[in-house]
Amino acid sequence: MQHIDKVSSKFEKLQEHACNIIEKSDGSGTFTKDSWQKDIGKGITRVITNGDKISKGAVNFSRVSGPLSKEMSKSLGIKGEHFTATGLSSIFHAVNPFVPTIHMNVRYFRLDNGTEWFGGGIDLTPIYVDVEQAKNFHLQLKNICDKYDSTFYPYFKKWADDYFYSKHRSETRGVGGIFFDRQKPSKTFDFEKWMSFTANLAEAYPEIYTEMLAKNARKPYTEKNIFWQKIRWAKYAEFNLLFDRGTRFGIESGGNTESILISLPPEVRWEYNYTPEKGSKEEQTQQFLKKNIDWINLPEA
Amino acid sequence: MQHIDKVSSKFEKLQEHACNIIEKSDGSGTFTKDSWQKDIGKGITRVITNGDKISKGAVNFSRVSGPLSKEMSKSLGIKGEHFTATGLSSIFHAVNPFVPTIHMNVRYFRLDNGTEWFGGGIDLTPIYVDVEQAKNFHLQLKNICDKYDSTFYPYFKKWADDYFYSKHRSETRGVGGIFFDRQKPSKTFDFEKWMSFTANLAEAYPEIYTEMLAKNARKPYTEKNIFWQKIRWAKYAEFNLLFDRGTRFGIESGGNTESILISLPPEVRWEYNYTPEKGSKEEQTQQFLKKNIDWINLPEA
Repeated sequence: MQHIDKVSSKFEKLQEHACNIIEKSDGSGTFTKDSWQKDIGKGITRVITNGDKISKGAVNFSRVSGPLSKEMSKSLGIKGEHFTATGLSSIFHAVNPFVPTIHMNVRYFRLDNGTEWFGGGIDLTPIYVDVEQAKNFHLQLKNICDKYDSTFYPYFKKWADDYFYSKHRSETRGVGGIFFDRQKPSKTFDFEKWMSFTANLAEAYPEIYTEMLAKNARKPYTEKNIFWQKIRWAKYAEFNLLFDRGTRFGIESGGNTESILISLPPEVRWEYNYTPEKGSKEEQTQQFLKKNIDWINLPEA
Repeated sequence: MQHIDKVSSKFEKLQEHACNIIEKSDGSGTFTKDSWQKDIGKGITRVITNGDKISKGAVNFSRVSGPLSKEMSKSLGIKGEHFTATGLSSIFHAVNPFVPTIHMNVRYFRLDNGTEWFGGGIDLTPIYVDVEQAKNFHLQLKNICDKYDSTFYPYFKKWADDYFYSKHRSETRGVGGIFFDRQKPSKTFDFEKWMSFTANLAEAYPEIYTEMLAKNARKPYTEKNIFWQKIRWAKYAEFNLLFDRGTRFGIESGGNTESILISLPPEVRWEYNYTPEKGSKEEQTQQFLKKNIDWINLPEA
């Protein structure tokens, strides 16, 4: 079995797994299943909207191939004739503003010259930063990483900080997580290990989110909290449309627009020069949107 | 007086002019005045929010200069050491979904090697396309163009169709208008003429919008119309963040973020796979979002 087929079939199973768990956690919403086929390849888009706890979310699987276009070469910073890729990517935006937006992506990429690599990560974008929640989240990621290589967590944590950064606002998208790209299998950490690591992340992801939903989805909230949710989501949309490589790669390679843009939040608000009140919970969140916060060792408030 | 100073002082006056007219037309909202100064230059951001008829809008003036960064060279498709530029750009998003979003921009750019050019345009993005309104709008633009050169309107109209195009959705942003870039003064159409033409556009712009407000700002509307307004505005935000050169140039050159992103609509909604009902007014609008519609000669419904 070719590597691409192995990864692809694993990712497809993990899509099913994530949807099953999240449907149970939501308790009311169900995922639609939309299989698409285009020149570039095929995919399965599974979308949940207007659930009891989840406002909008998706788990997307795709397997694509084709010649690298000029734009794609530029966007990826590589040159090559032909590629094959498979990926699983997911996002959930919750109804309750005390439940964060979560995002996961694992991907495998292969050029016809035989070069192959893995990429992926999980990151968290709270509407309101909760130090305990961020700490637990980072601990869970560290535990998965440490099972494979103790250098992974610090390396990939920094990478997430640098990647999920809106330089035009000098702020991070959220509290980060882990991110990695173009990790080539080596003799000491081979293809099987990379596949196992990425699969492990994708498997843990719905469990991590289920925990957050269980803890926060019933918290009471006000109109003011919803307003702030729209402000925070507007920044999420800005990041994805301006900077996110996955989004731009998808759009430029002629991918399925609705599947790519499913990552955008349900409703956002752009207010000119909006600044949270001094001493407010919103201002506190704003102050946590910084790189290089050592969440795991941060003292709780 | 240097060319840049002449244009810059003209644009600054036209900013005042536009704000005065629009304040009168709105009848309740007023423009704030926010002067900014950064390494790159200075600007005056004038913003109107929560007016009686206008939900969010701005008229921004700026005068900037500096070395062309790598990103800017790439984004502009030119190489050069140092530039000076001045521009006036404006946008209005109305409360009433039967009033379109309108956008205007005029700009002058000069490289230290002496190369100079003008760019600009006005374009319209209706929430609901109204053939008569689109026709009048295009006629008004054609009349201004024809005073200068009869080749301008057809040339710049096509340019707008091609520029304000969301290729990922195969649809235009709205009903277009005129757009032009890198128009170098020549012996037959010199600097003075270009300055007069761009100034004329910027002067006509608030009058054109005032007419639309007077006609449509009091039309009754429903929740459904507001929902569609958010759907249409989401596509406006997508275009600006994914493709608009002015936005990307501004973000990448370290411009004033809040002034650049003032163009984004107040509130937008992303629904997965949203398709208007067959036979609805929304579907009709969708069918008009195409290039190369000859609005002036289109028979009214």
